[in-house]
Amino acid sequence: MMKWEENVRKVVPYTPGEQPKKSHMIKLNTNENPYPPAPAVAEVVKNFNTDMLRMYPDPAIGDLVQEIADFYKVSRDEVFVGVGSDDVLAMIFLTFFNGKKPILFPDITYSFYDVWADMLRIPYETVPLDDAFCIRPQDYARENGGVIFPNPNAPTGELLPVEVVESIIKANPDVIVVVDEAYIDFGGESALPLIHKYDNLIVVQTFSKSRSLAGSRIGYAFANKTLIKYLSDVKYSFNSYTMDRITIEVGTQAMRDRAYFEQTTAKIIATREWTKKELAKLGFVFGDSKSNFIFATHPDIDTVKLFEDLKSADIYVRHFNKPERIRPYLRISIGTDAQMQEMIEFLKKYLEK
Amino acid sequence: MMKWEENVRKVVPYTPGEQPKKSHMIKLNTNENPYPPAPAVAEVVKNFNTDMLRMYPDPAIGDLVQEIADFYKVSRDEVFVGVGSDDVLAMIFLTFFNGKKPILFPDITYSFYDVWADMLRIPYETVPLDDAFCIRPQDYARENGGVIFPNPNAPTGELLPVEVVESIIKANPDVIVVVDEAYIDFGGESALPLIHKYDNLIVVQTFSKSRSLAGSRIGYAFANKTLIKYLSDVKYSFNSYTMDRITIEVGTQAMRDRAYFEQTTAKIIATREWTKKELAKLGFVFGDSKSNFIFATHPDIDTVKLFEDLKSADIYVRHFNKPERIRPYLRISIGTDAQMQEMIEFLKKYLEK
Repeated sequence: MMKWEENVRKVVPYTPGEQPKKSHMIKLNTNENPYPPAPAVAEVVKNFNTDMLRMYPDPAIGDLVQEIADFYKVSRDEVFVGVGSDDVLAMIFLTFFNGKKPILFPDITYSFYDVWADMLRIPYETVPLDDAFCIRPQDYARENGGVIFPNPNAPTGELLPVEVVESIIKANPDVIVVVDEAYIDFGGESALPLIHKYDNLIVVQTFSKSRSLAGSRIGYAFANKTLIKYLSDVKYSFNSYTMDRITIEVGTQAMRDRAYFEQTTAKIIATREWTKKELAKLGFVFGDSKSNFIFATHPDIDTVKLFEDLKSADIYVRHFNKPERIRPYLRISIGTDAQMQEMIEFLKKYLEK
Repeated sequence: MMKWEENVRKVVPYTPGEQPKKSHMIKLNTNENPYPPAPAVAEVVKNFNTDMLRMYPDPAIGDLVQEIADFYKVSRDEVFVGVGSDDVLAMIFLTFFNGKKPILFPDITYSFYDVWADMLRIPYETVPLDDAFCIRPQDYARENGGVIFPNPNAPTGELLPVEVVESIIKANPDVIVVVDEAYIDFGGESALPLIHKYDNLIVVQTFSKSRSLAGSRIGYAFANKTLIKYLSDVKYSFNSYTMDRITIEVGTQAMRDRAYFEQTTAKIIATREWTKKELAKLGFVFGDSKSNFIFATHPDIDTVKLFEDLKSADIYVRHFNKPERIRPYLRISIGTDAQMQEMIEFLKKYLEK
């Protein structure tokens, strides 16, 4: 070993879902939106004056921040924008989780939380979900260095009512509580209004799912202006200019089109409910997901083999190897009606064998 | 103070240069390129299929990495790409500067280095430049936790010959040495070939200056594949998908056009040399900058007042308040010939008064 290796931060990184480059696949493995972004996005990109790219972008990302603030009826100093919600969450871990007590998150949850904690040397404890894969709020009423959970949870899709979310916030006045709402637009109620009631609450959302912009990398957070200031100071200490000029305009246009957003999320919800009925008919078992995916297993078949067989048929879903408790489950993103029908047809034939 | 504030990382962020939104200004304050990006950039943006934005980008940024590797004749596993060189440098600080001994950098240098060190609680010592604002290589031949310096240095523009850079690397085999070459394309010789000779060397470059893409946020680093792997692991532990789909294509096209890159950098160098002659005639004093800016002062006038007076005439240059030694200096970015002529005319009249 070279001597300089002593000072290297050695980590085990997060593994994102596969991005195969096939033209004829059904890609239901990374919770992408099956519909294109709002029509104005195409216009703004087509007409973008690329000569402007020679100049730095607005470090405050002002236009996009204002558009988000307008849409959600909050003040612009209550909004933080980052390069995807992963960037926002990484900045939150770096800014707010610097205590000696362990932060808490569910044992089955977004698998990036423990990666951030490990990388930043943040002590943490995972809190087991109950047997129905639900968060038990009373488990978070104990000493800790911070709390984070997704709502709906990933990869289970289970939604906590906002009253239950509030009970967790209420039980933790001395630490920062982060509600990661990447999937909230598919049938959940946001904790956003609570930022005016609790000064320790941060609500995180993203353009990647409900606004069809996973490829643009835009995430955002809401909190009172004191927290947003702390977060921005750390961001400006990391990278002054995080969002490129084109993406700022893309995000601004996407946020502006409320009707398109409501239409596409409603379509995905309808497709999800149809898919649930069909999967149930085939004997699959799953919770009542309020996200853009279904976390399902089947009592009679080897679902890990099914995962591979789906892939051989160019149908990509997601399988997590750990924790052990979720090994029999597959996470199936909601695509278009046609895609889900094709998948259901495949499964019908598969189960007939 | 609320109890949760105890766990907040409190920092004093970097202050970027002003980005005034005026149409008739001469903006020489942030070292932007006065020429637009390569023509193919406009084409690729205009024809970009925005429907693709619904899907995550390639987390490995493969196309752009390959294009950079081809341009510089290195292997793709010797290239790391980030959201501007600030993102690349922040990741380097996070990955490699985790020792107890202080890292070393010049006392007059890119003012983000101490911000990163402070934010990440990295001990550091600044090494004074000599009276001519030059790095003395022998000052870096002592125990430390890492070394970083820009070449050419900022905001002085002073270039070290590559043999002197090598002497600093050679004197520091036990730590990581980072050569920050944001301005190398304006007349310097890169340390890039040395990555095959020294396993502890990282060379950082950017699309923001010589490739006219400050607004796109693309930076990159070269090092042997072991270092690139460590850096990538930390990046993947921070944010899997840092670069959006459009920017990946923009960067790829810009890197592909070698002729345009050589033309525009040659034009900027010629304009810089003309500007130096004119400034000298007016009694300004400055070093032999090999960057796209000139760091100048004038023995007979109050340059801080000049800074404000230039601004009143819509000519923006940069002034740094600290350290004390550089307070009388102004950093003037190189614009087009017409812009520099206009500035020189202003200065002529100003000095006649």
